[in-house]
Amino acid sequence: MKITFPDGKEIEAGEGQSLYEAFKQKGIYITASCGGKGTCGKCKVRVLDGAVRVENYGKLTQKEKESGLVLACQSFPEGDLSVEIPIESMLTVGDKIAISKTRDLFELFITYKAKLSPLISRLHLELPPPTLDDNISDLERLKRALDEKGITLSYPYDFMKGLADGMRQNDWNVFLCYQKESGEALGVEEPVEKPCYYGLAVDIGTTTVVVYLVDICDGRIVDVGSTYNSQMRFGDDVITRIVNATEGGELTALRRAVVADINDLIGPMCESHHINPDDIESVVISGNTTMAHLFWGLNPAYIREEPYIPTANTFPVWKAKDAGIRIRKDAPVYTVPCVASYVGGDIVSGVLATKMHLNEEISLFMDIGTNGEIVIGNKDWLMTAACSAGPCFEGGGIKNGMRATEGAIESVKIDRESLEPEIGVIGDSAPIGICGSGMIDAVTEMFLSGIIDQRGKFNPDAKTDRIREGDDGLEYVIFSRDGRDIVLTQVDIENIVRAKAAIYAGVSMLLKEVGFPFEMIERVYIAGGFGNYIDVEKAIVMGMLPDIPRERFRFMGNTSVAGAYLCLLSEKMRREAERVASMMTYIELSVKGGYMDEFMSAMFLPHTEMEQFPSVKAMLQG
Amino acid sequence: MKITFPDGKEIEAGEGQSLYEAFKQKGIYITASCGGKGTCGKCKVRVLDGAVRVENYGKLTQKEKESGLVLACQSFPEGDLSVEIPIESMLTVGDKIAISKTRDLFELFITYKAKLSPLISRLHLELPPPTLDDNISDLERLKRALDEKGITLSYPYDFMKGLADGMRQNDWNVFLCYQKESGEALGVEEPVEKPCYYGLAVDIGTTTVVVYLVDICDGRIVDVGSTYNSQMRFGDDVITRIVNATEGGELTALRRAVVADINDLIGPMCESHHINPDDIESVVISGNTTMAHLFWGLNPAYIREEPYIPTANTFPVWKAKDAGIRIRKDAPVYTVPCVASYVGGDIVSGVLATKMHLNEEISLFMDIGTNGEIVIGNKDWLMTAACSAGPCFEGGGIKNGMRATEGAIESVKIDRESLEPEIGVIGDSAPIGICGSGMIDAVTEMFLSGIIDQRGKFNPDAKTDRIREGDDGLEYVIFSRDGRDIVLTQVDIENIVRAKAAIYAGVSMLLKEVGFPFEMIERVYIAGGFGNYIDVEKAIVMGMLPDIPRERFRFMGNTSVAGAYLCLLSEKMRREAERVASMMTYIELSVKGGYMDEFMSAMFLPHTEMEQFPSVKAMLQG
Repeated sequence: MKITFPDGKEIEAGEGQSLYEAFKQKGIYITASCGGKGTCGKCKVRVLDGAVRVENYGKLTQKEKESGLVLACQSFPEGDLSVEIPIESMLTVGDKIAISKTRDLFELFITYKAKLSPLISRLHLELPPPTLDDNISDLERLKRALDEKGITLSYPYDFMKGLADGMRQNDWNVFLCYQKESGEALGVEEPVEKPCYYGLAVDIGTTTVVVYLVDICDGRIVDVGSTYNSQMRFGDDVITRIVNATEGGELTALRRAVVADINDLIGPMCESHHINPDDIESVVISGNTTMAHLFWGLNPAYIREEPYIPTANTFPVWKAKDAGIRIRKDAPVYTVPCVASYVGGDIVSGVLATKMHLNEEISLFMDIGTNGEIVIGNKDWLMTAACSAGPCFEGGGIKNGMRATEGAIESVKIDRESLEPEIGVIGDSAPIGICGSGMIDAVTEMFLSGIIDQRGKFNPDAKTDRIREGDDGLEYVIFSRDGRDIVLTQVDIENIVRAKAAIYAGVSMLLKEVGFPFEMIERVYIAGGFGNYIDVEKAIVMGMLPDIPRERFRFMGNTSVAGAYLCLLSEKMRREAERVASMMTYIELSVKGGYMDEFMSAMFLPHTEMEQFPSVKAMLQG
Repeated sequence: MKITFPDGKEIEAGEGQSLYEAFKQKGIYITASCGGKGTCGKCKVRVLDGAVRVENYGKLTQKEKESGLVLACQSFPEGDLSVEIPIESMLTVGDKIAISKTRDLFELFITYKAKLSPLISRLHLELPPPTLDDNISDLERLKRALDEKGITLSYPYDFMKGLADGMRQNDWNVFLCYQKESGEALGVEEPVEKPCYYGLAVDIGTTTVVVYLVDICDGRIVDVGSTYNSQMRFGDDVITRIVNATEGGELTALRRAVVADINDLIGPMCESHHINPDDIESVVISGNTTMAHLFWGLNPAYIREEPYIPTANTFPVWKAKDAGIRIRKDAPVYTVPCVASYVGGDIVSGVLATKMHLNEEISLFMDIGTNGEIVIGNKDWLMTAACSAGPCFEGGGIKNGMRATEGAIESVKIDRESLEPEIGVIGDSAPIGICGSGMIDAVTEMFLSGIIDQRGKFNPDAKTDRIREGDDGLEYVIFSRDGRDIVLTQVDIENIVRAKAAIYAGVSMLLKEVGFPFEMIERVYIAGGFGNYIDVEKAIVMGMLPDIPRERFRFMGNTSVAGAYLCLLSEKMRREAERVASMMTYIELSVKGGYMDEFMSAMFLPHTEMEQFPSVKAMLQG
């Protein structure tokens, strides 16, 4: 059966395949937080022509149904179809990260005073050629030279196959490639004066995958690519993916999905820069603990079950061929070490990127991605915890929620008198949804203008047509044109308040654990794609960020890939990452007495204890 | 095109395929010392019916041609054929080695006082299960327990994939499998009280492959299999195979050929003993240096070229999957260390099996297989050399030569008066050729009865019809019936004399090197399949073995597989093999001054210097 799109594109759908599955198979990704189970109501598509069997309309409204909308995951073609995918259902990646923005990463590297020492070391050897009087084997000859330098290696089968010819083709004057971490010899090569090799710094986020292609001989970032993590079709959040990987038996599929994403990014980058993929000879992976397990295909089941145990926090250096990354086969792949099941290598990378572990001052690091992780500490100690903020700030579980990409409402201002909103949209285009920073703005403005109360409930006294009864109860219409409405519902607001409460309660608990008040925090680092757009003032008023002087906040962007980049360049940085991971004490908040109280107290705007928000208190009284 | 055999069996031949190639492809091996080049004249087959294009009749006589014989490698079917393979053209393996004969190997092992410690070690670990307070990762938990025992391992990717479930399925009470030599963790398993695992001791000979299937938990030899090394189709001797592997680009084909031989032996053994191949978890390979290189697919080119350098003498422990052996994938494969390009692991195995390296007495070890290797020494020193005896004692280059299998003439006695021979045939069946021990007997008897002189030339004065002019000059008819003659030609005798001279000259040179006379040798160990049948007295008269008291000779059988067996059972034996290899000083005879003189002096029967053969001298004078 053929499916035709308005732009003329055609795909085939197999017998018994839902539209969602047929699209996915052809690389057309549409939003589906639930992974295609008919519950999230996001994979709306419009059938323009042809017969389709709809098993379930899920959350679709009567009006939507009448306009021809169906849920792609619940709809099965019964013949050729003509289908339109509304823009809000399309998964699109964020703007291509400008390489210029990555320049300061090498500056950061320089401040570490580390020398360039990638995962493959090269040692120049000039061996005496064999003679009848010195007729030891090639391997013994190599070992004899290395013994003199105090180097002991192991010699894998693949290395040995190339040894005899590699030595002779280069007249016994060679570069010996080896991997220090695993202690393995990798090959002998012609010695070159100006070597040129590449590496990949990879951030595997729950939602996006970012790859930096790096010239590891000078640290230059050659290109940057990013894409959605196509594991998304197995669920938006790590828990759903773990369930799919284990109970669903989809571990291999999840592993392959993210590896394919990385391969799909590498291919075009290599082509456009005329780089032979075999010249990419090292990889550093940075991601949360679940992402690291799924990337390697390690069973993540026990991450989810109390007492929350990963298979590994520190991963041995394995090879590109083990993972299936299509570069030099024996390229070493280093995984930035994790701390615990819910604080991963992405957070260790974050600490490396902030250098908070080297400073005297007490800092707070917050990575607000699909989940929220926090670190507090200084050069002497680091405490860390994860708070299940949920994916709402990335659009998950919010009726019109979306990622901070073109078309997303990223800022909202509400007139205190008319209660009319004024919006800012990424790319200045027609709005198609609302992203995290827009949500923070909207909720704070609704609160300040009296549309919602401290508990986040709609105020019955607020007089405006923009508050109306929707399918999910009361909602506020932020934008409306041509029958397309962007709203925040009562449920959405509750989700947002729950998320901000989780984050604040996490920070609060962690501070209590170390016995410090908020004022002691001299620096707050905010990481995550989300963190580039956030309005600190409004996030404080809402009660997500602590009420401390505004100049203490710093936005760091994607610190996960930054840490991967640092580890890619230098052995010192890899040892530093391991040191950071071992410095960090993990606190499991979910089993900590008092956490629920903290969380409940933070379910207010900004908080039940207004003393914790003195400046907000003053403003509200003002 | 169909080829039918008298027994009704049918095979297909492809377009342009010679009969030799068509047979080979279907696993029908026929003798062809030259590897199918039309030069050795051994692959005779008889075309009974059908059209065949014959490119070259090679060495076939007019009579043979008239009887329908063709060379299989030079004959191309032009339609369906009916073909008969004469028994002397068939490659057949030696008698199945009786397991009873292997019993004394375990006795030998016991004398070493080594404990059973196969390549995979198992450590019983009972770990405390994780709790919220002790929530380190599985890998850290394992490492913590091993640290306490002072064990440090590396953790390959394949190990890690099974760690989480392996631990939990066994409630943290497990056997940890690891490989001591490579220091790799291999798996976690249910701890069992009476473990039962298997291993393979493999002798890769140039001509035959022998596999012992061993219960490595008690040392019992469960079964024994042997087959021809199908690398034979690439040439009878190591040099031809090296040329084929390198200049012919057939390295991979050679590697696969011998691995297939091993796999073909394992399959039926496992089936008949109801053993799961995955329970075979270690392998020891013993073979000459070229065989070891070809087994692993390492380029053997430089073994052949001066200064004769192998890629490795000591091989790291690699895995069954690297080699392609179809047993437990990560089963370690240990290669008995080699000494030099022409003294391999088979000879190190031989020393282990004789224990000559532990004794005070000076011993001589001789392995007379397709090549000849010798070792002289005692517990303090070992000297070794190879002599290119050539394959004649295994039938190669001898007109009616064959291996010591059923139908081979293994003993010859010639009446001094009538010059009529009396023969002994293996299996008491109709003779089809002559094997090494038969050749030694025949040449010695011909010499003693005056048929040939001291130079091995036919004596014109010898009066018997059995000496006649054949296609290759003069020949002696050892057996004749129904038109099938078994002869020794002048060329054959020259080959045999050259071979015995090479062996004796090698021993002689090696003794000169250490400054000892022959009388100092208190023990002579003779190894090789050949060595089971040899008549010492006659071998001395011929001048192949030194003229010392007969009781000093010991026949050892296949010491290569014996050494492999010892190394399979115990770490101590593997370290002992390495110690033996490093004890051995290799002398490259071919570049040694004086070797040619020694060789030329030994080209007489028994020798130009009769003083070296006092008992023979006395007998001849008597």
